[in-house]
Parts: sequence; structure tokens; C-alpha cells
Amino acid sequence: MTIDLYYWPSIQGRGEFPRLVLEAAGADYRDMARLDDVEGGGIDGMMALLKGVEGFPAPFAPPFLVDGDILVSQSAASATYAGEKFGLAPEDAVQREWARAIAITTSDLATEVHDVHHPVGNGLYFEDQKPEALRRAKEFRGERMPKFLKWYERLIERNPAKTGVLVGRELSYADLGLFQIVEGLRYAFPKRMAAIEGDYPRVAELARRVATEPRVAAYLGSPRRLAFSTDGIFRAYPELDGEA
Amino acid sequence: MTIDLYYWPSIQGRGEFPRLVLEAAGADYRDMARLDDVEGGGIDGMMALLKGVEGFPAPFAPPFLVDGDILVSQSAASATYAGEKFGLAPEDAVQREWARAIAITTSDLATEVHDVHHPVGNGLYFEDQKPEALRRAKEFRGERMPKFLKWYERLIERNPAKTGVLVGRELSYADLGLFQIVEGLRYAFPKRMAAIEGDYPRVAELARRVATEPRVAAYLGSPRRLAFSTDGIFRAYPELDGEA
Repeated sequence: MTIDLYYWPSIQGRGEFPRLVLEAAGADYRDMARLDDVEGGGIDGMMALLKGVEGFPAPFAPPFLVDGDILVSQSAASATYAGEKFGLAPEDAVQREWARAIAITTSDLATEVHDVHHPVGNGLYFEDQKPEALRRAKEFRGERMPKFLKWYERLIERNPAKTGVLVGRELSYADLGLFQIVEGLRYAFPKRMAAIEGDYPRVAELARRVATEPRVAAYLGSPRRLAFSTDGIFRAYPELDGEA
Repeated sequence: MTIDLYYWPSIQGRGEFPRLVLEAAGADYRDMARLDDVEGGGIDGMMALLKGVEGFPAPFAPPFLVDGDILVSQSAASATYAGEKFGLAPEDAVQREWARAIAITTSDLATEVHDVHHPVGNGLYFEDQKPEALRRAKEFRGERMPKFLKWYERLIERNPAKTGVLVGRELSYADLGLFQIVEGLRYAFPKRMAAIEGDYPRVAELARRVATEPRVAAYLGSPRRLAFSTDGIFRAYPELDGEA
């Protein structure tokens, strides 16, 4: 049965976390908000679900998945649901919980990346909170980026399976999330990433491996993969980047 | 079997989300970082797990639960795990996913509350980011608080069970999380809450009901429930509050 993904059609944003899982799994899915000619598709279809329709609780925000009767919202929960349903998750109970925690931590990191350019709030433009953003960017580059990257690096290093992935033996949705983080940080903070990426060789290798998985590579080369842009979570504002 | 909760011993913080679930369920649990005389307890025991010990992946941050071989980290995942394990979660698959999404959204709201007083970053004191905090607080009180509270209110209103809870028929960990949010907002933003709380009568009634559940009431009256303070997520800084 087809599973439906709902997310803003013009940006990668948080929708990219579940979308990467669906693509990597070869799932039969529809990217509903991009399908204007499908019943319930397009922005209007997504907005109707966000307002709340009979039989579904209204999600707080996109992305969300609809799988028959089940509606799953929140990017981490959506990536987890898709990963567990389509075999891109550890099956063991211990590792399953661990993958879930990694996905939520990755989502938290995405929030921090977003708040670098929106430290005061979502309701204002970047241009209206630039002094605050400059301060937050310095803190993010200096403290938070290395802290998160080091955490991922150690997970790979200490994973008893020693297969180069974050959790379990096989590639999972947790690794796909890290790939998106690495790609996004390279786009938004190219100077900073160039300066520190070498400190996290396992992270870089895992990101490379994800990108070369056949289904992921096919997706990344397709029009379905939108480009990073300054409308998304990761934004290339040169004034927020720096080697240190 | 005993389940172990790990969190900073002097604040409610994010640990309060899983702790409330364990208390409301009457679970046999240990609050490890507060138990200096127990093997593996105290701050030292928690720090050891955060650094990473054999057999457990290192969590990014507290809170986390240890249940035999299983380590669950992230406050939303910990509340979910405890709720599902101890019968404070919907059993139906549709509603179970929904409760999970609510818990993550509640955790996101807690992050936003924290960032009101720390808009520039965790590494600086509030006093060093006050101008930024004043701007963010205005945005939070005016836009975000009503948006989240309205979302919870509608969930209760539209829940087909019509039993006054967020999801399913019975009280769940999702409702306990909302209780903590309401209590925290009343503490941190008393003027703003007094001005708008009447707009969300179902939320207020649900918070009241949670507080009067016998196990929750016993917990709230015990020394195990720490007081809110300006070291936690919710902070009573009068300059960040206001009627509008």
C-alpha cells in the first residue's frame, strides 16, 4: 500500500528526514504536497489535514506521514516510523530504542541549526534578527557543532558491530539522518566544516557511504531531491560562517 | 524489575517528563542521580554513563532511562517508553503514534521555552543575552504560546472519545506532558498565562485533572517533586513576562 508524505513542496526542510528514508527503502510513497493533480494533494490537501479532518488529529506542523488509518507527525517520529516499517531500522529492542533516540537528537540539532538564523523567532525575517544571529552562530560553530559531531563520531567508533554505522550492523534511518546533517552543515557552514570535518573521519566516511548507496544516489541525482536554499533549515549566509 | 531514571538531581528540567510518567504509573523506579549511596548512583554514576560504558551507547544528554539492557534517551522517547511500558499510553496503533507525536511536540515546546531565556546559546548566562531574550520573549508570548495552547485545546476538543484527554479514552503520558507545560508556563509567565489561560478551558481542566490523580497528587506533595527554579527550563524572570 502506498504511504503518503506531506511537506512543504519547495524546500528540503524537515521533510527531508522521512523522505530520505522512504527513498533509501525504495518505498512506494507519494509526496503529496507536490502532487497538484492528485485528490487530496497539493498545498491545499496538506493544509486541510493541518486544519484537522474527520478521523485524523491535526499535526502541529509538517512533515507528517499518512499510512492508511495511521497519521505520524514530527520529523523524527516520521523517519522512525518509515525506517521501522520498511526495514531500515535495527530489529533488536535495545538497538531500536537507541536508533529512536539518535533520530530525536538529530532533529534537535536541526532545530539548533534553524535557530542560528532565527534566534529571536520564526515570525521575523533573518534580516530583522541579524545581530542576534551573529552571536548565536559563533556559539553554534564553536561549541555545538563540535559537540554533536563528536557524539556521532564516538557512536560509530564504539558501536560493537564495527561496521561503520551509528547503531546495529546495517545502515539505518539513523545514518540517513546524519548524512542529511553533514550535507546541510557543509552547505550552510562551508568554512567551519572545512576546518573541523577532518576531526570526525568516521562521520565523513559514513556520509560518503550513504551518498553512494544505489537508491540514495539515484534519488540525489533526481529532480525529487531539491537543492539546499536560504528558505530551508540549513542556510548559506556567509556572515554566519567562519573557520572558528 | 526496577527501572532507573537518570537526570540532574537539583532541577525538574527535562527529566520531569519521564519522571511524571513513572510516578503516575506507580512504577518501581530509582532516581539514580539523587541516590549517592547506591552503586552506580549519584552524579558520578550518571556521568559515567554519559561518557559511555561497555554495553551502552552514550546518550547525548540526560534524561535517560535504563531498563535492563535497554537504554532510552531523550525526554520525549523516555516518557513514551515509560508510558507504553507501564500502561499510561493508548494501545491502539493509530493512537499510539499520535501520542508519540504529541510527546515530541511537547518536548519541542520545552526547547522553545528554554530558548526564550537562552536565545544565543547554552554556553552563556541569561545575563549575557538579555537584550536577545527580551525580543524572543515577546515573540514567544505573542505568537508561540497561543499557537501551542490552541493546538492542545483543539486536540482535546476534537478527540472522538470526548473524555477530556489529548488522545485515546484514558489519561496518558501525553496528558502528563501537557500538565508539566501548563505548570511551567504558569510559573515562568504568570502575567501572560493569567491573560490567556481562559481561552483554553479544556487545557486548564485537563491540567487540573492530572494534578488531582491520586498518584500524581501524592508525588506533587512529596519531596521528590522539586520546585520550579531559575535553574530549570521554565524560569520566572519578570522582565520576560507581560500580559501581552
